[in-house]
Amino acid sequence: MSESTITELRTPPKLADGTLRVVPLGGLGEIGRNMAVFEINSKLLIVDCGVLFPEEHQPGVDLILPDFSYIEDRLDDIVGVVLTHGHEDHIGAVPYLLRMRQDIPLIGSQLTLALVEAKLTEHRIKPYALTVSEGQIEQFGPFECEFVAVNHSIPDALAVFIRTAAGNVLHTGDFKMDQLPLDGRLTDLRAFARLGEEGVDLFMSDSTNADIPGFTTAEKEIGPVLERLFGQVQKRIIVASFSSHIHRVQQVLDAAAAHGRHVAFVGRSMVRNMAIAEKLGYLNVPPGIIVDLKNVEDFPDDRIVLMSTGSQGEPMAALSRMANGDHRIQVGKGDTVILASSLIPGNENAVFRIINGLLKLGAEVIHKGTAKVHVSGHAAAGELLYCYNILKPKNAMPVHGETRHLIANGNLARQTGVADENVLLADDGSVVDLVDGKARIVGQVECGFVYVDGSSIGEITDSDLKDRRILGEEGFISVITVVNRSTGKIVSGPEIHARGFAEDDAVFDNIKPQITAALEEAVVGTKEHTTYQLQQVVRRVVGTWVNKRHRRRPMIVPVVLEA
Amino acid sequence: MSESTITELRTPPKLADGTLRVVPLGGLGEIGRNMAVFEINSKLLIVDCGVLFPEEHQPGVDLILPDFSYIEDRLDDIVGVVLTHGHEDHIGAVPYLLRMRQDIPLIGSQLTLALVEAKLTEHRIKPYALTVSEGQIEQFGPFECEFVAVNHSIPDALAVFIRTAAGNVLHTGDFKMDQLPLDGRLTDLRAFARLGEEGVDLFMSDSTNADIPGFTTAEKEIGPVLERLFGQVQKRIIVASFSSHIHRVQQVLDAAAAHGRHVAFVGRSMVRNMAIAEKLGYLNVPPGIIVDLKNVEDFPDDRIVLMSTGSQGEPMAALSRMANGDHRIQVGKGDTVILASSLIPGNENAVFRIINGLLKLGAEVIHKGTAKVHVSGHAAAGELLYCYNILKPKNAMPVHGETRHLIANGNLARQTGVADENVLLADDGSVVDLVDGKARIVGQVECGFVYVDGSSIGEITDSDLKDRRILGEEGFISVITVVNRSTGKIVSGPEIHARGFAEDDAVFDNIKPQITAALEEAVVGTKEHTTYQLQQVVRRVVGTWVNKRHRRRPMIVPVVLEA
Repeated sequence: MSESTITELRTPPKLADGTLRVVPLGGLGEIGRNMAVFEINSKLLIVDCGVLFPEEHQPGVDLILPDFSYIEDRLDDIVGVVLTHGHEDHIGAVPYLLRMRQDIPLIGSQLTLALVEAKLTEHRIKPYALTVSEGQIEQFGPFECEFVAVNHSIPDALAVFIRTAAGNVLHTGDFKMDQLPLDGRLTDLRAFARLGEEGVDLFMSDSTNADIPGFTTAEKEIGPVLERLFGQVQKRIIVASFSSHIHRVQQVLDAAAAHGRHVAFVGRSMVRNMAIAEKLGYLNVPPGIIVDLKNVEDFPDDRIVLMSTGSQGEPMAALSRMANGDHRIQVGKGDTVILASSLIPGNENAVFRIINGLLKLGAEVIHKGTAKVHVSGHAAAGELLYCYNILKPKNAMPVHGETRHLIANGNLARQTGVADENVLLADDGSVVDLVDGKARIVGQVECGFVYVDGSSIGEITDSDLKDRRILGEEGFISVITVVNRSTGKIVSGPEIHARGFAEDDAVFDNIKPQITAALEEAVVGTKEHTTYQLQQVVRRVVGTWVNKRHRRRPMIVPVVLEA
Repeated sequence: MSESTITELRTPPKLADGTLRVVPLGGLGEIGRNMAVFEINSKLLIVDCGVLFPEEHQPGVDLILPDFSYIEDRLDDIVGVVLTHGHEDHIGAVPYLLRMRQDIPLIGSQLTLALVEAKLTEHRIKPYALTVSEGQIEQFGPFECEFVAVNHSIPDALAVFIRTAAGNVLHTGDFKMDQLPLDGRLTDLRAFARLGEEGVDLFMSDSTNADIPGFTTAEKEIGPVLERLFGQVQKRIIVASFSSHIHRVQQVLDAAAAHGRHVAFVGRSMVRNMAIAEKLGYLNVPPGIIVDLKNVEDFPDDRIVLMSTGSQGEPMAALSRMANGDHRIQVGKGDTVILASSLIPGNENAVFRIINGLLKLGAEVIHKGTAKVHVSGHAAAGELLYCYNILKPKNAMPVHGETRHLIANGNLARQTGVADENVLLADDGSVVDLVDGKARIVGQVECGFVYVDGSSIGEITDSDLKDRRILGEEGFISVITVVNRSTGKIVSGPEIHARGFAEDDAVFDNIKPQITAALEEAVVGTKEHTTYQLQQVVRRVVGTWVNKRHRRRPMIVPVVLEA
């Protein structure tokens, strides 16, 4: 549940000229749907517009969006959307925002915009986009944006320094400070130093790993591990990772080339993203190394690497089907599967099921628990301390994390000398005003979860989800009866249909006479009954019986028709 | 899914006199429902009879039992059930076994039997029980059992050495080798050495932590950490752990006593188990330290410790309700919550939601990720190596674990010199015969999951669970129509009821005319239609529409009545 929904709503004061207002519409209280709205002199600048992926208590939900209601009447005031990098939790909601106003300018790096445009094409939207790169300075209405290189688990990520009449904000996006990045593109501490000298009034930084002590291991340490593994394996190698982790795929391509293996990309997003990455020069593909999945059988097993999606146990993904033995690639003894990815909380059982399945087929399975085949893309506590000390921000507002991460990040700010009252632990929907070098939470706006479910957006309510949880746990019993009001007799039924309910339908024979009796008594009863009341009669009879007799509480759907 | 279900069934040969047959009915391929059946000369001995807790892909299931079908016709041949310790995954299925034959003798330590009897009382069963302790030797038909002390995360655990005409088996139950146990009760390596000298033909050992290198930390290291924390906290302390972890509770009582705090037990199983443990002398309760939960408000916050269940995020447990602010104990700033427990895979999101909720209320939260407040109860790889080396078993059969754990344990056996062909990687339902010092898998019997669901046992099928998953993800649409065959007209309806479906009912107005048309055409059509066929017509019309128009696949329940 969004933290904001358990925070009381306080209407913020009218925004005075020359004051900067910051309203996070997502990413504070959850890892995902990152979005922040900046406003000064009646103009809005947005940083990121991402989606959140549902948890098990949100069954059937496809995506969760930021709540746009705060800006839906202000669309024409938006001067641009800055996208810090190309991950779904930062760009995934852009199509839904552009449906409200197609010509909102998108600003981002070359790779980021390429990934957004690929996504928008699926939604048949052609965006207005401005490509920027590190060091570039652009003016968007009252906002002057300077873009700063940061490294992350996807190339070409940017932090943004926003200069306004009310003060300067540095927003890191997602980042880490790998000092040995594969592409040599460092998080630009020189720029951080310079901006620190200029003065950072508000520092908004990635909290995802703020509760993890020390420093994130360098990406470069993974290459040799893969090299060694590739040298040992006698048969096929299957590597599973995120389809946006271009540097990880690069390491796989390099290790494959070093050991004379061909690589086949497996999974729609993997194929699509690597085509984009190669075209733009972010992925260096050794000539002739790539083969099509449908041709891998033409090569000996010890000449093949499959680079696949599905590292989080997604049941429909290739890796999961390989583990169940129902994929064209029959995994067997001697094959080695490398899970070069993190394990997102909630996916443990699904991933362990895959690992057990692969082991049962005779494969070796290597994951971050057994070898250094993955490192995080987020700055740990030690790295964040460097940032605070070199920036010396007046105010700090942790972003991108659950409450536990935001609190940990806030503690780092305090430890480096940010005054306690200047550390803002805000929620989704918190309204933060920056004036005279002071940032304060001045209000709270509505900012609930917006569920995308099939073609519906924002129509699924929490009560629908509650219904789904009941149906999923207990199933339902539907009781249909046709009554004739005048005669007071039952013309047809009660007919009972149950699904997901423990017992077979025969058990209902016992209860049908009671339903009939209760209904007929109700109909011929002195009081005139509405259909609703008759349905309540059925609900009561069946509900009591199923609870007493079967110790279950399925959903009961009584239908009384008249004929 | 039980591993055994993806192993082809092979009928085992008739059991020859003087051969020992071992059939695990649970615990090989999953962590839980541990049960092993030993047979020689037509008599059966059972070791453990536990339950497995369902995962998210088994919605609504209360418990999963071992499959008793292998023994249901042999109940009178059972000479006894040895229970190695009192955890649910080792004793939880005993009531269901005794329903089939009440007078099966139960054999276990004092605490184990006390916990079983408390459970059986709820099922109104009075068992035939024999209390045994370490060093004791008892004859059960053709089986001579010698009991050996082992330590675990519950006191009074036993391994069992089974002497038969065909050879000797050592079954560890669950165990670790804490060299500094709180109660001084060591895993008896002297006995292991002696039994090794005598000769262990088959070693069945706990695999739960076999893939974890090194050694499990000693319980004694937790006490000082708790002591230090208790000394620092200014307000209430809330400790959450497993209600069977008597030694952990003892450490909490000791730390509370040292700092002049009273302790209230929270949670039904916590209250019940601690009463048993104190009565039998396993828990040493300082006089006057315990207070009733409903009286804690009478004491100042800095004099109170709440010892609670709910460490796995169970939504109904006290801890979860405290985190949501709907428990009589209002958690607030200065309170400290200690999660002194492991984090069982699949519970991560639920537990993190609780941690975030408690932090939001201003509490400090300490867990094994941030302080040494919990250690595992299972032997890690280093400890298992000691066992293999001191026992020198002829054959090794890893038990109690998922495939990945069993394989890791098997590798430890090989590394210590057990011949490759004598390392048995068996599944639930594998039939293992021991003869002439050789153990071999000779067959496979049916051994599926038996689901307890409300009052039903073994009636829920995998197709019911599939229905529940569909209902839980997509909801359902029920379409009821009453037709008059003779006139071919629709007398009433189509009436449409949907639950857990994204859109509101208004959307159905568009489809009702199509249903009516399709039905009337079908009824007046030349071909005579059965009710089933008419329902298929409705299913087809609605299914196509909802999929095309709403991109969803809810369960469609067409009902056609005749009047």
